[in-house]
Amino acid sequence: MSTTGLTTVNGVNVDQMMTTIEHIQQQPDLANFTFRARTEWQNGAHTRSRIKGFYGAGREDESRTEPLELVGDEPAILLGKNHGPNSVEVVLHALASCLAVGLIYNASARGIEVHSLDMDVEGDVDLHRFLGLSEETRAGFEGITLRYRVAADATKDEIEQLCAHVQNTSPVLDILTNPVPVTISMEASTQ
Amino acid sequence: MSTTGLTTVNGVNVDQMMTTIEHIQQQPDLANFTFRARTEWQNGAHTRSRIKGFYGAGREDESRTEPLELVGDEPAILLGKNHGPNSVEVVLHALASCLAVGLIYNASARGIEVHSLDMDVEGDVDLHRFLGLSEETRAGFEGITLRYRVAADATKDEIEQLCAHVQNTSPVLDILTNPVPVTISMEASTQ
Repeated sequence: MSTTGLTTVNGVNVDQMMTTIEHIQQQPDLANFTFRARTEWQNGAHTRSRIKGFYGAGREDESRTEPLELVGDEPAILLGKNHGPNSVEVVLHALASCLAVGLIYNASARGIEVHSLDMDVEGDVDLHRFLGLSEETRAGFEGITLRYRVAADATKDEIEQLCAHVQNTSPVLDILTNPVPVTISMEASTQ
Repeated sequence: MSTTGLTTVNGVNVDQMMTTIEHIQQQPDLANFTFRARTEWQNGAHTRSRIKGFYGAGREDESRTEPLELVGDEPAILLGKNHGPNSVEVVLHALASCLAVGLIYNASARGIEVHSLDMDVEGDVDLHRFLGLSEETRAGFEGITLRYRVAADATKDEIEQLCAHVQNTSPVLDILTNPVPVTISMEASTQ
């Protein structure tokens, strides 16, 4: 990333960004982060996750005084009550928000002012496997399509170069397009 | 899935579940769903997604009269203002809520009453790639660990069998552990 020397671009403190990058270049393990969520089942398909602390930049973060909450549920056709989006809809938000943040941070580092950015994202899923009706189909999204619209002080070519870089560095895009090892274990079971 | 004949178990209408499964067995394309989100960048790392309609069970769903909203942001150490969880934290909620719904639905189908269920999930990420400092490390989670605690009218063995089935049929676990094709395109760019 390079900077134009402006302090804040698109609401991003570019000086802080450059300082963070310098610190990590000097001490690489500052880039190791562990994020966490605690999820409690409520009733039916209704769940609630609390997200507060995480480890990063060499220490436990304490910037959140209250937990951030996410509520999950299913629509009626899938036996829920619409208290919140379902888990695959949440994945669509995760992808779009990750690409948006990447695009804004990298635009800011390049001194490109962004006036607006929005995205439509959709994913196709066949529920046969989730419902225990088939082992042949995959359980998750067969494919995801994302279209974005941007207004910025940059040419279409510059935006496309920016977006290519963002796609190469996006955590959630990597998580979706490449396998992540997941370990699941029961900690306690009581009757 | 089999049912004990009870109508509602764990807040899940088992009769409706069995009817849905019968309909899909008779008309397989009813299992094709397309979920959607529209995400708008706010400022800095702050994003907002609206989730309302989707296609499923052969038609456009209209059960949500208002959009469900998800807010994303980053903590201060990552240049944000903590308006919401960041996108990889959202992925942790997506995984836990998906496994919880799968466990509850399958327990309900088997007539197992669940008294409580909660999960701790965490993921490790190295931010070198996101920050443009390395092409060697992956951008997303290097690994995710989930531990769950359950109280239910079932033996430990029955719960472990249930959980094995859920892991084999979970949409989000599949999305994380197997590659999903993602297509990204610019729809419009203005200066």
